[in-house]
This record gives sequence, C-alpha cells and structure tokens, in this order.
Amino acid sequence: MSHPLRVTIWNEYIHELQNAAVGAIYPEGMHSVWSKAITEHLGGGVQIRVATLEQPQHGLTHETLAETDVLTWWGHAAHDRVDDEIVERVRSRVLNGMGLVVLHSAHNSKIFKRLMGTTCLLRWREAAEKERVWIVDPGHPIVDGTADEFFEIEHSEMYGEHFDIPQPDELFAISWFEGGEVFRSGCTWRRGKGKVVYFSPGHETFPIYHNPNVQRIIANAVRWTAPSGGLYLGKGRNIKQPLSPIAAEHVVDESLHRKK
Amino acid sequence: MSHPLRVTIWNEYIHELQNAAVGAIYPEGMHSVWSKAITEHLGGGVQIRVATLEQPQHGLTHETLAETDVLTWWGHAAHDRVDDEIVERVRSRVLNGMGLVVLHSAHNSKIFKRLMGTTCLLRWREAAEKERVWIVDPGHPIVDGTADEFFEIEHSEMYGEHFDIPQPDELFAISWFEGGEVFRSGCTWRRGKGKVVYFSPGHETFPIYHNPNVQRIIANAVRWTAPSGGLYLGKGRNIKQPLSPIAAEHVVDESLHRKK
Amino acid sequence: MSHPLRVTIWNEYIHELQNAAVGAIYPEGMHSVWSKAITEHLGGGVQIRVATLEQPQHGLTHETLAETDVLTWWGHAAHDRVDDEIVERVRSRVLNGMGLVVLHSAHNSKIFKRLMGTTCLLRWREAAEKERVWIVDPGHPIVDGTADEFFEIEHSEMYGEHFDIPQPDELFAISWFEGGEVFRSGCTWRRGKGKVVYFSPGHETFPIYHNPNVQRIIANAVRWTAPSGGLYLGKGRNIKQPLSPIAAEHVVDESLHRKK
Amino acid sequence: MSHPLRVTIWNEYIHELQNAAVGAIYPEGMHSVWSKAITEHLGGGVQIRVATLEQPQHGLTHETLAETDVLTWWGHAAHDRVDDEIVERVRSRVLNGMGLVVLHSAHNSKIFKRLMGTTCLLRWREAAEKERVWIVDPGHPIVDGTADEFFEIEHSEMYGEHFDIPQPDELFAISWFEGGEVFRSGCTWRRGKGKVVYFSPGHETFPIYHNPNVQRIIANAVRWTAPSGGLYLGKGRNIKQPLSPIAAEHVVDESLHRKK
Repeated sequence: MSHPLRVTIWNEYIHELQNAAVGAIYPEGMHSVWSKAITEHLGGGVQIRVATLEQPQHGLTHETLAETDVLTWWGHAAHDRVDDEIVERVRSRVLNGMGLVVLHSAHNSKIFKRLMGTTCLLRWREAAEKERVWIVDPGHPIVDGTADEFFEIEHSEMYGEHFDIPQPDELFAISWFEGGEVFRSGCTWRRGKGKVVYFSPGHETFPIYHNPNVQRIIANAVRWTAPSGGLYLGKGRNIKQPLSPIAAEHVVDESLHRKK
Repeated sequence: MSHPLRVTIWNEYIHELQNAAVGAIYPEGMHSVWSKAITEHLGGGVQIRVATLEQPQHGLTHETLAETDVLTWWGHAAHDRVDDEIVERVRSRVLNGMGLVVLHSAHNSKIFKRLMGTTCLLRWREAAEKERVWIVDPGHPIVDGTADEFFEIEHSEMYGEHFDIPQPDELFAISWFEGGEVFRSGCTWRRGKGKVVYFSPGHETFPIYHNPNVQRIIANAVRWTAPSGGLYLGKGRNIKQPLSPIAAEHVVDESLHRKK
Repeated sequence: MSHPLRVTIWNEYIHELQNAAVGAIYPEGMHSVWSKAITEHLGGGVQIRVATLEQPQHGLTHETLAETDVLTWWGHAAHDRVDDEIVERVRSRVLNGMGLVVLHSAHNSKIFKRLMGTTCLLRWREAAEKERVWIVDPGHPIVDGTADEFFEIEHSEMYGEHFDIPQPDELFAISWFEGGEVFRSGCTWRRGKGKVVYFSPGHETFPIYHNPNVQRIIANAVRWTAPSGGLYLGKGRNIKQPLSPIAAEHVVDESLHRKK
Repeated sequence: MSHPLRVTIWNEYIHELQNAAVGAIYPEGMHSVWSKAITEHLGGGVQIRVATLEQPQHGLTHETLAETDVLTWWGHAAHDRVDDEIVERVRSRVLNGMGLVVLHSAHNSKIFKRLMGTTCLLRWREAAEKERVWIVDPGHPIVDGTADEFFEIEHSEMYGEHFDIPQPDELFAISWFEGGEVFRSGCTWRRGKGKVVYFSPGHETFPIYHNPNVQRIIANAVRWTAPSGGLYLGKGRNIKQPLSPIAAEHVVDESLHRKK
C-alpha cells in the first residue's frame, strides 16, 4: 500500500460510561488503550479513527469503511442494537479485503457470527481466575514479540470450549483456565479477500487490555489482517465467450435457461 | 445410528414443470433421479422423502427436519422465494448435526451462503462444453467407486473460478473446462456438528444427473455427511462453578457485569 | 469393503515385560486391552492381529501390511530400534490408503515423524496429575459416544504445548492439565490416500487404557481411518498424449529434456 | 527484522551449463533471473546469495543457512545427488523459521518430500501447450500485483493431478492445461516455525521465468515466507515442576519411567 495503514477502532462504548468500575480502569475508553497500543507497535505510519455505537450509522459510513484497511471490533452489552444494514456493509467490505480483528465478547457480535455461519457460542464464567495463554503456532506473525511459550493474565473471565466456530484456518493460541477449561483463544480465518482474527483475552472489568502481550498481539493482528491490495474477483459473472474457441454446435439454446 | 439413514431431498422443482426440454430429461423431476441413485448405492436402509418449494413451509417443517439425517438441496430460479425463517431452521439443524449436500446452482442458495459467510459467487457460461472432473483427493470416502483419475461430462455448463467460498476443509474434485476455466467442483466443510458438501456437476438442461459417476458421488456424499450421533454442545452457557476449586477472593462482584 | 476390517495392533511390548508395575496394570500387554476395546465397539466384523518389536521384521511383513486396513502404533522406549526399511514400508502403505492410529508416546516414533515432516516434540512431565480432555469437535465421528463435553483422567502424564506438528486437518480434543498446560490431544491428518490420527491420552504406568472414553475413541479412530477403497493415483506418470488434441506445432524437441 | 531480508537462491545449475537451448534462454543461469526479479520487486533491502549443487556442501554451510531468512530451491536432474545431511540441515532450519520457496521440478526434491511426508509425485507431459494460471485466493499476499483473474503461459510443460501432497494450508493458484489437465500450482504449508510455498510454473527449456507474473509471485512468495522472528519453541522438554502447585501425593515414582 502506498498510503498509511488506516485503522478504524469500533467500540460499543457503553460500559466505560455507565459503570464506574470500568471507567476507572479505562478512563478514556478501551478504544484509547487499543489506539495507543497499535500506534506504539506499528509506528507513525498508522492512521487511527474511532467509531462507536451511538454515532450516526455507528460511525461506519460508506466513506469511513472505504477508507479503512483494518477494523477492530469490541461489543458486549448491545450487539442487538447494531443495525443489520451496517453489518452487511461491514461484511461486504471484509469480503473485499478489509481486515477484521474481533475482540473478546465480540464473539457474539452480528458481524462475526455472520462471517462464520455458526452460533459462535461458548461457555463462560465471571470469576477472576488465572488464564494462561499458550502460543501454539510460534512462527505466526501475530505472536511475534510475545513471551516465550505462554503468558499469564492473573484475573480473567473464563471463556471455554466448546466454542462453536468453523475450524480456524490457523490456531495461534489456546488458553488454560485455573477453573479447569481450555479455549481456542487466538484464531484466524479468510473470508473472500479479507482476513479475520479472533482474540479472546480482554474484558471490561479487568485491566487486561493494559497487558503488554495482549497489546502486542492486537497490534500484530492489525498488521497481519491488512489487505495486500488488488481487485476483488468474486463478482459472479456470466462469461459469454469461452477463453478457448469451442465449436459452434456446442452453444445451447439460451432460452432454456433462466437467469441465475 | 440405530434407525435407517433418513434423507430429505429438496428440489425447487420449477424447471421440470415449466420447461419442456427439462421435463423431457427429468420426466419425474430431478429428485426422482437423485432418489434412485441414493437408494441404489446406499441400499435398503435408506428412507427418502422429497420436499419442494411450493409445499407449505417448503416441505421443511420442524417435524420433517427433526427426522432428517441428511438434506440435499437443489435450487436455481427461485432462491429468493425460500423463506428466511425456513433457512434459519435448516441452518440450526445443520449446526446440530444434520448433513447438507448442496448441488450445482444451489451455490447461490440462501442456506449455503448463510453457512459459508461469503458471496459464493462464481463465473459461469451456458455452453455445452466438455467438463473433466479430476479427483484430487483419491482417498476420500466421497469419491469411492468413481473412475480412476477423472471422469468426463460431455456437455456441461461452465462454472469457473474465482469461486468465493471459504477455503474448503477438504477439496476432492477440480473441474477442467474445454473453454479454459477451472473450478473447485467438490468441496467439504464442517459447520457446528454438521457436515456440508458442495458438488457442482449437474444441470437441469443437460442429463448430467444420469451420469453414473455423478450419481455415485452424490450417494457417497449423503453417506459421508450423515451425523455420527451425540448431543450438540455449542450451547453457550454461563458456568457458575469452576470445575476445579478456586479461592473465594477471586469471585468478582457480578453486579459489574451485564448479561451477555 | 467386502471383507472384515483388518486391524494390526503394533506394540513395542517392552515395558509390560520388564517393569513389574506396568505388568500389573496390563498383565496381557497393552495390545490385549486395545484389542478387546476395538472388538467390543466395532463388533464381530473386525479381525485383529498383534505385531511387536521383537518379531522378525517387527511383525510387519509385506504380507501382513498388504492385509492390514488399519494399523495402530504404540512405542516408547525403543523408537530407534525400529528398522528404517520397515518405517518406509509402513509409510508407503499409509500413502496407499491404510489407516494409522498413533498413540501417546508414539508421537516420537519414526513413522509419525516421517509422515508429519516436523520434529513432533512436546513438553512433558511425569506427574500423576489430572487431565481433562475437552471435545472441541463434537460432531466428529471419532468422538461419537464419549462423554458430553469433556472426560477426565485422574492420574495422567502431562503432555503439553508447544507440540511441533503440522496444523491438524481436524482437531477433535484439547487437554487441560492440573499443572497448568494445554495440549492438542486429538488430531487428524490425511497423507496420500491414508488417514492418520494422533491421540495422546494413555500411558504405560497408569491404567489409562482401561478408561472407557479412551477405549471408545481408539475404537472410533480405527473405524474412521479405515480406507474407503479405490486405487492409489499418486503414481507420477509421464503422460505422452494430451487428453485433448493439441496442434502439432506445439510439440517441442524432446531431446531438450532430461528424464525426471 | 532489523536486518535486510537475506535470501539464498539454490539452483541445481546443470541444465544451463550442459544444454545449449537452456543456456540460450538463461545465459547467466536461472538463478540470475530469480535474483533480479526478487531485487526488483522487494527493493534494496534484500541481500541475495546464490548456492549450487557443485559447491562444497552444495553451498549450504551451517553459516550460510544461519544467515538465510528465505531459501528458494530449484532442482531437476540431480535430486539424488543432494546429500542427506544437507537436506536435514535445511529441514531443521525451516522448522526453526526459515522460509522455503520450492519451484517447479523441485516438487521431487528431497527437501520438499521430507517436509511433506508424501511422495509429491504428479503427472506430466513435455509438450509446449498453453497453461492458464487461475488465482483462486485473490486476497493472498502472494498474488498481490498479478493479473486480474488468471494469467497465461503460452508454452508450458504440463504438470497435472493427482499431485500427492498433503492438502495445502492455502491454495492460491490452480492451473488449466490445454491438453485437459488441472494442477494445484500454487500452495502454502506451515512446518514448525517455517513457511513453505510450492509454485509450479517454470521450466528450464521455456522462458517462463521471464514472465512478469511468475516473477512477481516468486518475489511475493519470498517476502511472505520471511520469518517473523522469535525463538523456536518446539524443543521437547521434560518439565519437572508443574506451573501450578499440585498435591504431593500425586507425584509418582519416577523410577517407573524410562527416559523418552
């Protein structure tokens, strides 16, 4: 790309405003922490916008999406309030190459479920127990710069299997929980021309997004999902002429066919 | 399974009734050809129903789906007339283990697109040119009993790349077309507990569904997508108690959390 | 297949003979436990042989392998004593369709490493801690009939990540260990026409192979890896004649080419 | 990486010297064409070495490999003359993160077969027929900058299915051949920390490596397989201490165990 990497951070932005405990952990909103982490790791060539639920069109106008290379998504309390038309707009943009980084409770967002085709449901428990994030694909660019073999989050919400997702194209992290569960916590998929990452560590009532390893992975995921350019090809076209000549008698009566 | 394999064949069933040329090739409907092929290859233990677009609820009531192990799907002219509620009902049943075999122009059906998350668009050309179906996964149960390395369809509609699907979990066939295209014509995916197969050879105005290799693959696909049993686990549960004891001081104030 | 499923159980068979504690747990050898479990679950149509390291050709003659549909493999103390020629013989048979079920410490066997291409190394700890095996692909035939969401092994050897394997084609189980690790404990791959399963729970000094869930999964894995028939196609052939006619002037001077 | 991308181009380098027709097409060796293409597309930050079969240790000393980020490999006439020890050295380096780009007839090289675990055999025909390379993963970084939907090679050697490889992690190109075959011509796999690409278009007696699209893909593949850094984790370790405390009574008698 000849332009800077253009990142739009989407934050539901409800908990921080309505819940004093969350506000104390993320006084400027979680988006501000992600924004700083991405800028710190990816450098000055990154341009970041923030969009939130309450903005018109949730801040995701056609213009904004057209100028977005990677979108990060966090939602929890109000998935249902995201307009279906905007979901389809985001989906179309992903299929045309925009990266999408889905964080924590956004496993249950409309856009993630729409791209996956499954329920994306999981087990969970709101107990501040220890989570140990094991790196299971140590050569993946998304885990570059993280701790050796695992890193820990002292107080985490438990997300556990079975997680109803299509098998990831790449699985880069599996989490261990003190309470006895495991979770595929770092996953990638390709959809159309776009790359999708799901990364579960993070929660609004714990300071997980201040964890350096978590920040590093989110920044790496933004870089990794950035589009590589080129036109989208999946247009569905009626190709009248064969690429190689074929004999005239092969051409059938088109009146037999209805349009597709 | 202790019961017979219960297969529901879904056919849009428009072309055969409205188009004399199609009716001449499939006088009892394409469903009748599929039904015979499945019965012939899978034997007497198979129970087959047929459901069509014009039936109430498109023939796919809750009761019918609850008693269906594998659903085959063919549509072309009227994808949009399939009710969204029925599509969701079928999708839910697939995620809970029902097999789904998607045929030819049903690449553009609501149910297939909903499970894939992508547009599922492709290139096509209505010319009766030669298609050569290459087996690229010779050990896959779905190609058991087919010709050695490839088989041919003399007069086929061209379906070509780029085909906008998530990369298949397994790719068992790639088609070559006389006119110069290639196509991933035999693909499998897992969604939830269900198995999904897409197989492209077949068309209403050509007698492709009379081809023995095509029939064999459809029958194999039905057998392969049959569920293996067991309860569906992807329910999304709030697990109050950890599986291993954790210290009481770890339990956070639940009032901080909204419901998910 | 028109013949019974022919299973060859390969057991290194050293620990049971040399170590009294192991002998007490498996007085007739571990192979006897696997044999009973497979017969019990798959029924009378299964024919089982046992082969061991000390037999001539390790019991894996050309004749035996030619008559084997599925081979199960357990080794631990003497991987290096398996003859390279036999390893290649087994590999060739897998590529031609024989199923291979690799158990526990056989992650480090020559045959598994040869088929994977990686080191297949892992972390381990010989402490009798609790292992909880989570089912992460509840619709997979290999987990049919097992406990709901997970099952437990009270005293297990720890096998942990990072496990240096190619990403599995299918991942059906992830284990949680009391000591803080996770492990991809149930994996499948396809190699040539053959199916390969790795399943880690099991150990010579713990009675893990008496666990009903472990037995069920091993039996299921045998059934799932059984070949579906057909000739092997990956022969590498110089095809002199194109399948479609091409113009004579396209034929180059073959003297330019060396043989491949 | 803080250093330039260090690429080692390995060329068997026999045909160019012994065959006048090949020498006329590639007067400075095929390595010189690849080198220019990689430098042109990836810019001044790339350092390129060339290594050939006839050099001591085939030019692949421990020092050279330690300083190589990506290795490209072309061989045809003398696969068997590559020393097994060097093959293992290269394999170990790939597993530790070095990228490997395998070109055309190197599908049959020892290093590729060793990493894949399969025979890697294919069909072929030495006829200068048309090859059309279809891009089937238009968002993949490796196809960035190539022609829209396909590009053509007027006179190509035919490589066709069945190609006996493990299913690629990603399939970015499928070739159509005038003579009636298809081929998975652009594939990626991960092995250990390393990325492996196979790209088939290219031949010593045709000027295919002068094709701009082929050059672009090779350069992109070099960039894409470059390691992302970090230590290799797949070391296989006996971890004496659990990460979480476990009760003392769980510790078994270690004398029961042999070393692994």
